[in-house]
This record gives sequence, structure tokens and C-alpha cells, in this order.
Amino acid sequence: MEGGGSDWPQRATPEQVKAYMAGRKGDVEAYLAQRVSHGNHPEVLKGIAYYPMAGGKRLRPVLTVAVADSVSEGAGNRALPFGCALELVHNFTLVHDDLMDNDSVRRGRPTQHTVWDEATAINTGDIIFALAFETITLTEADDATVRKLMAEAARTVFEIGEGQQWDMDFEQAGPGEVTEEDYLRMNEFKTGRLFEMAAKGGARVAGADEEMAQEMGLFAREMGIGFQIWDDYLDVYADQEKLGKDVGSDIRNGKHTLMAIRTLAAAGPEDREVFMRAFGNEGASEDSVADAIGVMERTGAVASCRATAEEYAARAEERLRKLAPSEHREFLRGLIYYMIARDY
Amino acid sequence: MEGGGSDWPQRATPEQVKAYMAGRKGDVEAYLAQRVSHGNHPEVLKGIAYYPMAGGKRLRPVLTVAVADSVSEGAGNRALPFGCALELVHNFTLVHDDLMDNDSVRRGRPTQHTVWDEATAINTGDIIFALAFETITLTEADDATVRKLMAEAARTVFEIGEGQQWDMDFEQAGPGEVTEEDYLRMNEFKTGRLFEMAAKGGARVAGADEEMAQEMGLFAREMGIGFQIWDDYLDVYADQEKLGKDVGSDIRNGKHTLMAIRTLAAAGPEDREVFMRAFGNEGASEDSVADAIGVMERTGAVASCRATAEEYAARAEERLRKLAPSEHREFLRGLIYYMIARDY
Repeated sequence: MEGGGSDWPQRATPEQVKAYMAGRKGDVEAYLAQRVSHGNHPEVLKGIAYYPMAGGKRLRPVLTVAVADSVSEGAGNRALPFGCALELVHNFTLVHDDLMDNDSVRRGRPTQHTVWDEATAINTGDIIFALAFETITLTEADDATVRKLMAEAARTVFEIGEGQQWDMDFEQAGPGEVTEEDYLRMNEFKTGRLFEMAAKGGARVAGADEEMAQEMGLFAREMGIGFQIWDDYLDVYADQEKLGKDVGSDIRNGKHTLMAIRTLAAAGPEDREVFMRAFGNEGASEDSVADAIGVMERTGAVASCRATAEEYAARAEERLRKLAPSEHREFLRGLIYYMIARDY
Repeated sequence: MEGGGSDWPQRATPEQVKAYMAGRKGDVEAYLAQRVSHGNHPEVLKGIAYYPMAGGKRLRPVLTVAVADSVSEGAGNRALPFGCALELVHNFTLVHDDLMDNDSVRRGRPTQHTVWDEATAINTGDIIFALAFETITLTEADDATVRKLMAEAARTVFEIGEGQQWDMDFEQAGPGEVTEEDYLRMNEFKTGRLFEMAAKGGARVAGADEEMAQEMGLFAREMGIGFQIWDDYLDVYADQEKLGKDVGSDIRNGKHTLMAIRTLAAAGPEDREVFMRAFGNEGASEDSVADAIGVMERTGAVASCRATAEEYAARAEERLRKLAPSEHREFLRGLIYYMIARDY
């Protein structure tokens, strides 16, 4: 996986990926700052700026802009409003998800519904959603393209909601009741579809034909799914400080990650018993979490999930062969492995 | 006010208004039924259909279609998707508002978050919102018009959210702290703007020029504001059975209606004391509510609010002079007085 084959030029290194993202971030944040600043209710304006202006990697708008520029150099700026619209979509879902999950901290700050109240958080999320869709109409593209982007982005949000519903369903499911297929569909809808739209939208604004637009969408969808699988892997193996949450919290929370699903499918009765001592047991000791991780390793679930994430990465990279070589394409290739093979 | 002046033809009677609405309702409901039936998660499909398919007067889509036909006969059908999109917007706000207000009954049925749970109700509202915006793109109009409708509808939802925030602010405000200006702005944003968009959108799809589109928007905004003021009046004077809630509930809830605001502004110290015994006192006896209504009458607040609603109606009707005479225009004129002078 490391080299990507001798027929490719060198992909961007993690340092180059970070530099490219840093170079794009200023435009994204300036545009977002302008978008959240118009309204009639001062407290609403504070509320809608709270998440969107709290930083973050800006993965979705950077993806939109980089894909647009890799399809047609210079198109990135015209696609910026669309990318920022999806960043607003992402932020509205975070406001509502934090409330639905009753989480109290995000990015080191108290969540929206703890700073304001629950009713205000619901309303603020709705307003950010509206702002996102207004922002799509500001994309510098012809009316037919904007209409198509609007229809596709609306269906994307519909599907994110379906993914969120499956995710909530899984919280009620017992061990072994969520299949690998269920998990992958949830992950595709909840995470993959928005990345897909970000890339496909960038391609459309740059004038890509339908085949190219679809291929860019699939590249980003696969990168997004792999990213989420990798995230689950990090829950077990990341440096706790870099992760920003306790190692093994998914195990204690009984989260139906791909690793947990594969562990439960493969474990014999004894291993299963050891695993179940920690899985879904919020008070599990560090020792029993360590034992559960031992089971995940013994069953091969850890190695196979790492391999699955890497397969998604490789498939995503292959999609990029449709693009001519450019600084932007090599960034996108580097971004895949920055997101999926990362250890932070 | 009754005749509307001899220079007008007869406006539609309440019976004719009801017949016109009944004639339009079938198309609206068939279109909505089709819109809520596509998705991947069966329980989500049940959830998103629950409010939109529960009946109601379908005021917003009927308004869109009737304005379109009154601008250009036959344009109504092309505007139907836009009207249904706004009906979906209305329904998504009801799902979230019922949760924010913790209401348990709507249209005689348990509210969304009591049938499902709160998290599912938040998510379902979001999905209906997404479906609404997808539906806008299905409007049978050229791409430039659809782009404009989308931008305006998104800002409308933004402003509905601002209106909802003001309404929630008012619940925390003490007696006399909400001014008449505050109330009218809240009412304009929370209720008026969506009616405005319904009519303006119908006009745009029918090919109206900018001046006509704006005038149709203002007609509907004024009708919507008057409708809400009339609603507050009905809380005190309607037949309890027709109203579907206890007479005087706004008084017991301490709701800052225009009548309450004017009563508090005009009452002398003694009347104010009598009024405050019931205002915001959920356990107030029927006698003390009756005494409070007596104060509202003595101060002239009741009569002046009735007059204000009727002024909104008259102003709305004047806007319709821009239209050529037609069955549709006379329906719209009748609708104003059906909505504002109604006693149900």
C-alpha cells in the first residue's frame, strides 16, 4: 500500500497534506464567517456561529475545492460556497447529534445545548441547516448545475438522517444483532454520503462530465467509510491524548463498530464471555478492557478491520486515476492516507 | 369592511372558499403522499409521513396554487411541488416546535416525540426539512426561477427560526416586557413569512414580474399576521369545542398576545392587579379568567385587536387589486375573511 505503485507520481506526504489544507483553510473560514453574520436576532447569530467558527479540519470544503481544482485548475474558488454549505450541513448535524446523544463536550468546548438550552439547540440547528441551503444557491455555477446540486444535497441530508436513525437503532440492539452489512450501510449513509457530495459537487462546478462526477463521488464516499472504520480502530490503538477521549470507550459503550461485530461473529464461547465482560459495561476495569482487546486481536478482528480500512483507501485512490496529474490530485491521494492511516 | 366596496365583484363566500380548498386538497395530498414514500429506512418513512399525512387545511399549498392560477390560469399545477415543499417546511417546524414546547397533542393525535422519542423526533424533523428542499427542485419552472425560489425559501426558514427564538424569548419575559413592536415582528417572522413565500413562489412560477411577486407576498404576509392575531382573539371568544383547547388558555399560560400586551399597557393599577391574578397563573379559576377577560374588554384591548386583525385583512385584500378578476382571485379575497373573521 505504501508506494501506490510505480506508475503514480509521488503522492503528497502528511506534511504536504497539512500544508495544502492550511493553505485552503483561510478562504473557507473567511467565507463561513461572512455567512453566519447576517440576521435579525443577535443571540441567534451567536448561536449559529458557535460550531461553524470553532475550527476543525474543514475536510468537506477542502475536498470540494481540491476536487474542483483537480478537474479544472482555477474552479476551486467558484466551488467554495458549495463546500462551505456542506460544512454548515456538517455543523448542523453536529448540533443536533450532540443533543440526541446528550454529549457535553465537542472540540474541548461545551456542546451547543449545554451553553444554550435544548429547545434553542434544536432551533439553532434548523437555522444553520437553512443557511446551508441558502449558501448552495451562491455557488458560482450556472442555474442548471445549482439546481442539480440542490437536489442532490437535499437527498444527501435525507440519507444522513437515515444513517443517524440506523446508528440510534444500533444503540438498542443486543450483541450480535447488528450485521457487518448493517454497519457498512449506516456508515455509508451517516458519513460517506456527505464526503461523496462534497467531491461530486466540486467536480460538477468544475464542469466535469457525469462519469467523472460520479467517480469523484465514489472516491470520497470510500475515503469517508474507510475514515470511519479507522476511527473505530483508533479508539483501541490511538495515543489517548491525541484521541481526545478514553481509549476503549467504544468497548465500554457497547458500540457496534466493525471490530466489535467481527469479534462477536468469530469468537468462541470462552472468548465471547471475556469480551462481554467489558462490552457495553461502562464500569469495566482497565484490565477487563485490555482482556477484551486481547479477544479482538486473537479473533483476527483488529487486523481484518485495519485491512478493510486500507482496502477502502486503495479503492478510493484508484478512482483518482481518472484525473490528470496535478498538485491537487496528489494532495487528494495523500489525504486518503492522511485520513485513514493516521495515528492521531 | 363587509362588502369590500362596490368596485369589487362579489368575493367568495365561506362556503365557496371551503369548496375551492376541498377541490385543491386532493392534488396536494396525492403529491405529498408520493413525496414521503421514498427512502431506505422503513421506520423513517413512517415517521416522516406522520404529520404531513395527518390532514389539516393545506393553507400554504392552496395559497401557492391559487396565486399561480390567478396570475396565469393553468400555472397552478406547475407550482404544486413548490406549495407542497412549503407544506413540508410547515410540518417539519411543527415536529420540532411540539418538542420544544413539550406539547403532547396535535390535531387530536399524540405528537411526534410522544409516539417516537425525542431524538427520533429531532432527526425526523430534519429529514422532512431535507425532503422539503428536494421538493422545491421538482417545481415545474426554469432553472433560474428554481434557484431564486430556493434562495428565498431558505432565507424564509432562517427567519421562521428567528421568529421561533423570539417566541421562546417571550416565554421568559415578565408582564409588560414584550412590546407591541416585538410581538408584531415575532408574528411576522414565525407565521407571516411562510405565507408570504407561498404566495410569492406561486406568482414566480406563473411568470409574474418582480412587482407582482412582491405584492402577492405582501398580501399573504398581511393575511398571515392578521390570522395569528385573530387566533389570539379566538382563544378568548371561540366556542371551546371548535377551538380544540380550553378558552382562556393563553391567559393562564401568560402568553404575550397582542391583546395581553395592549391590556397591560392600558390598564390602571386596579385592573392590572385583577388581570395579573389570572395571567400566567395555570391554576387560575374560571372566575378569575372571566375577570381578566373583563379587564381586556374594559381597557379596549379586545376591540382594538379585533380591529387590527381586520385592518390586516383589508390591507391584504387591497393588494389583490393588482390581479385581474378571476375565480382564483375572488377565492383569495374570500380566504382572507375566512381566515381572519372566522369564529371556529
